[in-house]
Amino acid sequence: MSSRSLRLNADMGESFGPWVMGMDHEVMPHIDLANVACGFHASDPDVIRMTVRLARKHGVTVGAHPAYPDMVGFGRRSLACSADEIENLVLYQLGALAGVCRAEGLTVGYVKPHGALYNDMARDPEIMTAVIRAILAFDASLPLMTMATRHTQSVRALAAEHGVTLWFEAFADRAYDEEGRLVSRREMGAVHHDPNVIVDQAVRIARGQPLTARDGSELILEADTLCVHGDNPESIAAVKAIRQALIGHARQESGK
Amino acid sequence: MSSRSLRLNADMGESFGPWVMGMDHEVMPHIDLANVACGFHASDPDVIRMTVRLARKHGVTVGAHPAYPDMVGFGRRSLACSADEIENLVLYQLGALAGVCRAEGLTVGYVKPHGALYNDMARDPEIMTAVIRAILAFDASLPLMTMATRHTQSVRALAAEHGVTLWFEAFADRAYDEEGRLVSRREMGAVHHDPNVIVDQAVRIARGQPLTARDGSELILEADTLCVHGDNPESIAAVKAIRQALIGHARQESGK
Amino acid sequence: MSSRSLRLNADMGESFGPWVMGMDHEVMPHIDLANVACGFHASDPDVIRMTVRLARKHGVTVGAHPAYPDMVGFGRRSLACSADEIENLVLYQLGALAGVCRAEGLTVGYVKPHGALYNDMARDPEIMTAVIRAILAFDASLPLMTMATRHTQSVRALAAEHGVTLWFEAFADRAYDEEGRLVSRREMGAVHHDPNVIVDQAVRIARGQPLTARDGSELILEADTLCVHGDNPESIAAVKAIRQALIGHARQESGK
Amino acid sequence: MSSRSLRLNADMGESFGPWVMGMDHEVMPHIDLANVACGFHASDPDVIRMTVRLARKHGVTVGAHPAYPDMVGFGRRSLACSADEIENLVLYQLGALAGVCRAEGLTVGYVKPHGALYNDMARDPEIMTAVIRAILAFDASLPLMTMATRHTQSVRALAAEHGVTLWFEAFADRAYDEEGRLVSRREMGAVHHDPNVIVDQAVRIARGQPLTARDGSELILEADTLCVHGDNPESIAAVKAIRQALIGHARQESGK
Repeated sequence: MSSRSLRLNADMGESFGPWVMGMDHEVMPHIDLANVACGFHASDPDVIRMTVRLARKHGVTVGAHPAYPDMVGFGRRSLACSADEIENLVLYQLGALAGVCRAEGLTVGYVKPHGALYNDMARDPEIMTAVIRAILAFDASLPLMTMATRHTQSVRALAAEHGVTLWFEAFADRAYDEEGRLVSRREMGAVHHDPNVIVDQAVRIARGQPLTARDGSELILEADTLCVHGDNPESIAAVKAIRQALIGHARQESGK
Repeated sequence: MSSRSLRLNADMGESFGPWVMGMDHEVMPHIDLANVACGFHASDPDVIRMTVRLARKHGVTVGAHPAYPDMVGFGRRSLACSADEIENLVLYQLGALAGVCRAEGLTVGYVKPHGALYNDMARDPEIMTAVIRAILAFDASLPLMTMATRHTQSVRALAAEHGVTLWFEAFADRAYDEEGRLVSRREMGAVHHDPNVIVDQAVRIARGQPLTARDGSELILEADTLCVHGDNPESIAAVKAIRQALIGHARQESGK
Repeated sequence: MSSRSLRLNADMGESFGPWVMGMDHEVMPHIDLANVACGFHASDPDVIRMTVRLARKHGVTVGAHPAYPDMVGFGRRSLACSADEIENLVLYQLGALAGVCRAEGLTVGYVKPHGALYNDMARDPEIMTAVIRAILAFDASLPLMTMATRHTQSVRALAAEHGVTLWFEAFADRAYDEEGRLVSRREMGAVHHDPNVIVDQAVRIARGQPLTARDGSELILEADTLCVHGDNPESIAAVKAIRQALIGHARQESGK
Repeated sequence: MSSRSLRLNADMGESFGPWVMGMDHEVMPHIDLANVACGFHASDPDVIRMTVRLARKHGVTVGAHPAYPDMVGFGRRSLACSADEIENLVLYQLGALAGVCRAEGLTVGYVKPHGALYNDMARDPEIMTAVIRAILAFDASLPLMTMATRHTQSVRALAAEHGVTLWFEAFADRAYDEEGRLVSRREMGAVHHDPNVIVDQAVRIARGQPLTARDGSELILEADTLCVHGDNPESIAAVKAIRQALIGHARQESGK
């Protein structure tokens, strides 16, 4: 995927039983990729069904968003699973989502681990390998979404070894450190709130232009997709603004 | 399926986390159809994986054994779900099992609802329709396993209306009432313990010969499959004895 | 409790993990009795702790709001539990809440079963007996909250037999049928939306004056407590209006 | 507690729904302290009730055995909870067990965290503090059971600071390393299988005599209680043998 087609992804289907989370109906029209919770950290069979229908209606690609089994912790707490356990729980969640997709005439288009599993995978090759093995076992053509950072050689090598495609993900509303990792939310300035700053960062990422890391160094992120949010009206507005800016950018590109 | 090929089915993969249930390794070699728990009343991703591998090793067809979400109650307690909820929870479980099967080069071969869902489906056409809708949404060619009783016209009509195949299931170790329903376990004589009685009933069902119902009337059950159990050494011995007897019966048939 | 002191109760602590439900901070200052979810249909240890703290801050009595184990269904679906299972799951939830109360220097003040368990208890004496047995086993002095209807002799007799106090609950925003049961939400006019109607019904219940049932008959409900809601700004406004009206009524009473 | 009264503790109530674990009826008569699972890693309200009844019948002290919420992983996998989350989940489980104890005329006598929580507490003072805060909030007189190791100053200091009693636990069937920690089960010789070795180690611990650590050094463990197991007939036999040997030792002591 070239920078021209920087796609927008958002976490969808995070409601659970009677509890609503996220403004899925407002965000879905503006994104390309829907990371759909699979019932281990959020969602349930009914929510998944509705979310997949909504994705179909808007022509959005459905991705599996598997997580550790931890509903109350929303999959945000690391759980010391073995590699086999991770492989099997990803496989189970992938299959469950694929089953619902099949009912709606869709297929799962990619895999993005959620929360603590996403972070653990990024720092531990054994865990990334477990996720990759689940993908290979299910459908080797499915891309795996992971963090774009400054140094991606080792994860690229691991994926290449297994023949799995990586989609690198960047953030428009987060500050980066010198390693190209997200600055912790506990630090000042970790999250951008100014819409202009957010849109500017999105366009820079799409154009392959450098961001300024926390230490002042230039940081170029090679990203295939941008993570956006649909939690509240502000984030919906940001998604729309990013979308407009990226369309403008794409027109310039194609007009060259 | 003619009576000639009365197939043996058993509930498999009913362990959960550290808790072992059933002697799956002992039973699997002697059955045709493995009803694999899908994680809502029993099983977990690791248990499902092992069970599907075991089925593949022995050439046994894997069936989905979906249930109400009630682990502590083992899916044996009716839960007042809506038709949509039932459709979606069956679909989710079907998909999850299919995902694991895919990893092992298999596909799901049929659907047998478990426990309270199995019983509720047999008495309530709305619930059976919900299960059928899940099958149609996933793969309309999958047979649905249900109880063989004296009067099966209405369930046959319902399945025919939706174009779904039914597999009727009978029991060799249970007494039947005049309607061709199982005598409640709370009543005397509900469960046969004498191996000769069990094998005789299996052979009668396979041959299409009448059983004697509780009220003394003759009862002919048109069955495609016989439910067997792998809970303990006695039930394993019964499975083997039934298998031998049915093979003998099949030889006689083919020798005609 | 005389009508003079018609107390307001509301379901509290219905958030779960990352999912927020209810405007507990807005409602708590205006109620007398907080029905706190115990972790089986809603809530978790952290939510319970916060809710109990909030109740303590406002001097609100904490009641246990036990439910069937059905998080995704929010305890609104009947689950076919045995009497022993119901006794033990109520006891477990009572104890868990009491443990958190103890940490905050409070005790559990009463028991109000939630959702399907509340309804099942009202129609099935065996289930009410199971709930009563849990109360007797834990603390026989705890009142049990149940529906005020036209005919309460049988439930009064059952409670008296076991020496348990009943608190009867009425609704200001719901229409009643001729039996003094709530008109189903599926019917027209089942729920009152006009604040004046709601406040008027509250005051009538507090004064022991008759309501007009669906069939036009007069219906006097002997109620100890009124159920109010904290789901949205409208319901919060209704709680405040009811509270004001009841204070006015109480003043008139005491001024006699 | 002097070595004279080295008490035997065992994990009890680890069944769940239809799944049986442990030979509780066989072990309970021979132990002093029953660590009862509280529904987060094992057990359910019915199992807890039965287990507490069994403890009462044999005059065994009931202890709370709280765990991370991870049924499928049996609480053996670390879960990255915050200190507040740990405090509240221990409190909830303590309360739930106490509720059932109350129904049987008992009280909870101590707290022994289970599995990964037990290990995490031993290595992380913040986690031990969270557990201690739960105890203080519930009943400051409840002892906390933790590992006896070579160096216990820091945990003793932490407990003393909060005014909580520690009960140190040792193992008769496990090899110790030079720090007085259990040799990992993955290493050769980590688990003793010879009944004579097990009984000898139990008696040495009871007498305050040194064990031989893995590196050949002498290791004296100051232990209040010995962990025994009830998983299978061999472990039951070991419990009985240890019990006999300790009675013999106690007689010698009292005869001095």
